[in-house]
Amino acid sequence: MSSADQITSERVVISIDVMSGDGGLGAVFGGLQKSVRKNARLAFILHGQQDKIDAQLARRRDLAAVCDVRDVDKIIPMDAKPSHAVRGGKGSSMWNAVESVKKGEATVAVSCGNTGALMAISMLLLRKVPGVHRPAIAILWPSHNASGFNTMLDVGADIKAEASDLVTYAVMGAAYARHGMHLTKPRVGLLNVGTEEHKGRGALHDAATELEQRDGDGFEYIGYVEGSDIPSDKVDVIVTDGFTGNIAIKTAEGTASLIRGLLKQAFSHSPLSRFGALFALTSLRRLTKRIDPRRVNGGVFLGLNGTVIKSHGAADATGVSAAIKLAFQLAEGGFHERLAARVASGIQSSETTPSNGPKDVTSSEATRP
Amino acid sequence: MSSADQITSERVVISIDVMSGDGGLGAVFGGLQKSVRKNARLAFILHGQQDKIDAQLARRRDLAAVCDVRDVDKIIPMDAKPSHAVRGGKGSSMWNAVESVKKGEATVAVSCGNTGALMAISMLLLRKVPGVHRPAIAILWPSHNASGFNTMLDVGADIKAEASDLVTYAVMGAAYARHGMHLTKPRVGLLNVGTEEHKGRGALHDAATELEQRDGDGFEYIGYVEGSDIPSDKVDVIVTDGFTGNIAIKTAEGTASLIRGLLKQAFSHSPLSRFGALFALTSLRRLTKRIDPRRVNGGVFLGLNGTVIKSHGAADATGVSAAIKLAFQLAEGGFHERLAARVASGIQSSETTPSNGPKDVTSSEATRP
Repeated sequence: MSSADQITSERVVISIDVMSGDGGLGAVFGGLQKSVRKNARLAFILHGQQDKIDAQLARRRDLAAVCDVRDVDKIIPMDAKPSHAVRGGKGSSMWNAVESVKKGEATVAVSCGNTGALMAISMLLLRKVPGVHRPAIAILWPSHNASGFNTMLDVGADIKAEASDLVTYAVMGAAYARHGMHLTKPRVGLLNVGTEEHKGRGALHDAATELEQRDGDGFEYIGYVEGSDIPSDKVDVIVTDGFTGNIAIKTAEGTASLIRGLLKQAFSHSPLSRFGALFALTSLRRLTKRIDPRRVNGGVFLGLNGTVIKSHGAADATGVSAAIKLAFQLAEGGFHERLAARVASGIQSSETTPSNGPKDVTSSEATRP
Repeated sequence: MSSADQITSERVVISIDVMSGDGGLGAVFGGLQKSVRKNARLAFILHGQQDKIDAQLARRRDLAAVCDVRDVDKIIPMDAKPSHAVRGGKGSSMWNAVESVKKGEATVAVSCGNTGALMAISMLLLRKVPGVHRPAIAILWPSHNASGFNTMLDVGADIKAEASDLVTYAVMGAAYARHGMHLTKPRVGLLNVGTEEHKGRGALHDAATELEQRDGDGFEYIGYVEGSDIPSDKVDVIVTDGFTGNIAIKTAEGTASLIRGLLKQAFSHSPLSRFGALFALTSLRRLTKRIDPRRVNGGVFLGLNGTVIKSHGAADATGVSAAIKLAFQLAEGGFHERLAARVASGIQSSETTPSNGPKDVTSSEATRP
């Protein structure tokens, strides 16, 4: 059917967990097929049940030609606890997909599975980049900016963040914005509230003080931003802890979904409004495309020795294809190496003693070959 | 021009800080006029500069007939720090508006001024209801529910909240939903993230445990909800700390504003889409009206000995009128008394020792006459 020798050195190899999503194998393979038709330089290592994968590939000869299939006998369910996934996940499609990045067979891993399980397995196998205490998940957020997007992190890797974590998120987020949105000097803002005299929590103040000193170090620190600024054109990278970031992204999803629903109601209210909808259809499609969450599918795990992308659990073929496109962009430009270098230089410039806590040390075992 | 003897006992008296908004006196008086034309039972005590108020009332005879004007020589600016407002705010329009509630001249106070300053002055003058450690600001959030709205609190009174505060917010939020949305047994949810094994912070767990025991005590506790559930029809009252709540509400504002902007762009894209917009206009107006923030203008301060409503700083006449309508609804139904009773009964049922910390005691001076 397919073999590794078909994957040439010119190709960018992405490791795919084909089993873990809610959308089923049809969605994943639909997305893979879309991707290879658009981009001839893609190749995949597919981790999943051989018979099911074979059935999908039998109908997709062009895709089969660039796929290397690895059989697994285990799938991590969407409701698995991260600790269970780590203890019992070895040999699963998710585990093996990340392990392909660790082994250097693939540059980026993509999974539609459980975020917590994927992060736990990724941390265990890839380990943290020296200088990173907490990894983060970064997403692209539709905005008024010229590129159409802002970057926000952390949206849920860790519910806590100390001041030093927020500073690291700023450095990593700026690296991502430079790479992904071709910005020379991204504008970084710290998410805070505007109603309190002391403007938020202690960690935010300390991070702000540090970022003011770092300003110019590959980014411009613009100070505090509020929730209403997240989709604005006054900031490129929004930094927050994973609890707040997760609430914010889901609140935005809920708001967009409410408005979509009400828009639909408004246009089906009467025969005249249904007639109006016919004329408005193209405009509405243009809007929908612009804020379609499938177009920006993919949370990138930052701060690990290797790049992992979490695709939406319910992603369809368009969503999976968007995640693959993001994976290709990050793989091709050597994003991970640049980010690690940037974090390391940040530590040298700001810390007098290196971080040597036992949990922070990157063991030789964890270093990618 | 007008005098207190015109305000009969049948009327509901609202105390208004007419000076503190960004919208200027025109917006406030436009809103007051709209209100009295719709509701003949309204009367106002207006706190502001006599000459400016007189100029506004000279053009509005019907409004003047139900207004009692109180001259002030001080205005608290929109960027005032809460501590400054408390130290130097005595005699200002904001201070005196709240003092009218304390004295019992008015049932509810409304201000378009600085949220932090208004909360600080309200806490000082009205004091907290026994059993409430932290007051909260509750807002109505457009939702898929039959009433069209959910209640969310705290959206910014205090950036911190212990487990016991979250439980009190649940009790107060449920009282507000029973009163404001005529729900017999509101469904209460705790805002949390869905990505972490332990599902969020310690205070959330403790609050969840307590709320499970309180379930049935005037509300139904439905467990954790996520950001995407805020506008859903699965919950009526969303409870969170003021930091998270403030980020959430502003993120929703930003998202709605982004979509509005993009919708406008989509419909002005080409002559054909502009033509389509003509047919879609009625439908779009219907949508806009449904999610118009001016229609739900007014954050209610809960947990104080008296009701204070924070209207949006940039509210226009429609927004001010919405805040007045809310004030009337809360004043008329004896909402404050019911809420205090509910909080007190909650303390009796759950605490073995009464809360007697010096800062929590409601002094006799603070008790409303």
